Amino acid sequence: MAKLSTRITSITGGGSDGWEVFNRARQMIAAGETVTELTQGEHDILTDDSILDAMHRSARSGQTGYALVPGVPALRDAVAARVQARTGVPTSADNVLITPGGQSALFAAHMAACSPGDTALYIDPYYATYPGTIRAASAKPVAIQTRARDAFLPDPEAINAAAQTHAARSLLVNSPNNPTGSVYPRESIEQIAKSCVDNDMWLISDEVYDTQIWKGAHLSPRALPEMADRTFVVGSLSKSHAMTGSRIGWIIGPKPAIDCMIDLATSTTYGVPGYIQDAALFALAQGDALEEQIATPFRRRRTLVLDVLSEQNTVTAIPSNGAMYTMLDIRATGLSGFDFAQALLTEHKIAVMPGESFGTSAAGHIRVALTVADDKLAASVRTICQFAEQLTQGRSNAT
Amino acid sequence: MAKLSTRITSITGGGSDGWEVFNRARQMIAAGETVTELTQGEHDILTDDSILDAMHRSARSGQTGYALVPGVPALRDAVAARVQARTGVPTSADNVLITPGGQSALFAAHMAACSPGDTALYIDPYYATYPGTIRAASAKPVAIQTRARDAFLPDPEAINAAAQTHAARSLLVNSPNNPTGSVYPRESIEQIAKSCVDNDMWLISDEVYDTQIWKGAHLSPRALPEMADRTFVVGSLSKSHAMTGSRIGWIIGPKPAIDCMIDLATSTTYGVPGYIQDAALFALAQGDALEEQIATPFRRRRTLVLDVLSEQNTVTAIPSNGAMYTMLDIRATGLSGFDFAQALLTEHKIAVMPGESFGTSAAGHIRVALTVADDKLAASVRTICQFAEQLTQGRSNAT
Repeated sequence: MAKLSTRITSITGGGSDGWEVFNRARQMIAAGETVTELTQGEHDILTDDSILDAMHRSARSGQTGYALVPGVPALRDAVAARVQARTGVPTSADNVLITPGGQSALFAAHMAACSPGDTALYIDPYYATYPGTIRAASAKPVAIQTRARDAFLPDPEAINAAAQTHAARSLLVNSPNNPTGSVYPRESIEQIAKSCVDNDMWLISDEVYDTQIWKGAHLSPRALPEMADRTFVVGSLSKSHAMTGSRIGWIIGPKPAIDCMIDLATSTTYGVPGYIQDAALFALAQGDALEEQIATPFRRRRTLVLDVLSEQNTVTAIPSNGAMYTMLDIRATGLSGFDFAQALLTEHKIAVMPGESFGTSAAGHIRVALTVADDKLAASVRTICQFAEQLTQGRSNAT
Repeated sequence: MAKLSTRITSITGGGSDGWEVFNRARQMIAAGETVTELTQGEHDILTDDSILDAMHRSARSGQTGYALVPGVPALRDAVAARVQARTGVPTSADNVLITPGGQSALFAAHMAACSPGDTALYIDPYYATYPGTIRAASAKPVAIQTRARDAFLPDPEAINAAAQTHAARSLLVNSPNNPTGSVYPRESIEQIAKSCVDNDMWLISDEVYDTQIWKGAHLSPRALPEMADRTFVVGSLSKSHAMTGSRIGWIIGPKPAIDCMIDLATSTTYGVPGYIQDAALFALAQGDALEEQIATPFRRRRTLVLDVLSEQNTVTAIPSNGAMYTMLDIRATGLSGFDFAQALLTEHKIAVMPGESFGTSAAGHIRVALTVADDKLAASVRTICQFAEQLTQGRSNAT
């Protein structure tokens, strides 16, 4: 075989991909076993029929040819209006590029911020694709470690030190956060913004969970002084409208940057299906009611999980104020998140993600996705707590 | 604004984007004028309702969540079977990555072949996005010039010289060709393949027009000895099934390369909507009949154009043996393709693409897209010929 580029062969960075427990659960299911999956961030509902019907109407009415690469004008307008209404920052269609999903927007943002070899910062624990996305953009990923006792919020001193050491060009943050469920408070967002200004970095703000806030308020860093000119906001209908499979999202940024990203889109995707954009337009036009309907089960289940946890003292939760996950601290058991998750799957047929799947900061934790029915979720978390208690007692007996 | 990367600001390469005539035509239409557009490579039919209905059935039956990043297994199998049947080369799902359109596959192929700074070769005249795609992959585009009298087929000596001078990592070819309508004969494909072997380059073969052959036969270079291990084939349903707006295509390559491209896809697109993949599967399952139905108008119109041209001696056609375009030589007028196209639009409200929109080799030519109804097309080409004759006579009178 002809030689592949160094870039393409090193996207994963080698080592474990963090999906061992997930894959083992899927194998068990394929072999006929019953496993409760609390792994992936995918709704337990489908895309609403009304949205799918709107898509079909668009396609049947003739929206089947090339759509404009930057996006259908009406959708760019609608996204701009939404962002302006939610943040107060003046935003027009010129600030919006429609992308085939949030992941495509994350990639475009790093392509725009970093030239090959530049350093891009991101916060550990992190969503699985982050370092690979930075490597795919031929940039160098450098993680900022955080601590469970800080609710995994980044320390501005750590950001500044890394920014200076590596002359970093960008910082990627995600609030509400996957995997921790943290919602960054205003103080933290202000510190992050200041670090970006002080170190002349782009801030890439992944806000795909911004409709899933259970406590506190979402603050988009683009709304802070001086930040609209150095912030890319990544948005998507995947989580807010249960449209994960439709691959529809956007990136918000300064017009000159968006213009360059349109050149990139011309070369990498050549636009997004027009009928999917029309479906997205329909979905956004439904307003808060539909978004709230989709968020409600996760809000309810998060309370349910906290209630179950309040009955015991072994397992503690990271304050999970947003997104469709709860991060549980199982360090009392003495096990790693990975070993705990493997044992839990073996003993109780419950699959969760080890904290180690998301970097090194969340070692000794597990991430529970709130994506199964309430009673099943409550029973599973109860089992997780009891299992952790047994392991903890076994450990203290052994000592 | 924070500083953008050098890479993102240089994708277009500066200068004209070649779409001035197209854009002026659109402005005239917007102002209420009637313009015959023979510019874009878009069918004058819509995607067949049966395909759109298959998509809707898939979506309504629950195919709305994340699809597997490499593609739906049944579609990967179907594409592999299609490629094997058409080329004779053993091909399995492991050799196939489903992409959101052929453009995405072109980008992935260059990411896989070239590291940042490497040189990628391509043939002039070329499809508009080629050099930008190479620049987006942080590689250096180097064009191989061709000549009208060679029917714009590349000279192997020119390829070898450029490959050696630049230590090029890849060569991009496109047969049937946009913009020229050439179908590369076996001898040319064999020469190209030899150049790739001799210079240890990847061959990136854009075969999106492979169902549109009017004369001769399509030969995929992947079918030649030693080539399966150094060829990426780019395919799509855009042209073959009138599904341009659905953004559904694929890349075929050696398994280890496809595995790396799946990592890239995870970081750049995160897969293709499952319901679109199901629609593609339905479209492919219709077999040759649907493809022939879609190709037939272009076959008929190409003959029509050649018949009109046979009535005069001023305008000559490059042998247009495939694809939905005819390239016309208007050098007898003494005008550039650009000036001719601008004058044609002003005088006769007919919009064509100047040859200069596709590089430098096709200067003094215009590309006519066979994408309007037969009578309108015949009348337009007759007008083009008469206009060229007037200009030519005016020129000889002036001499």
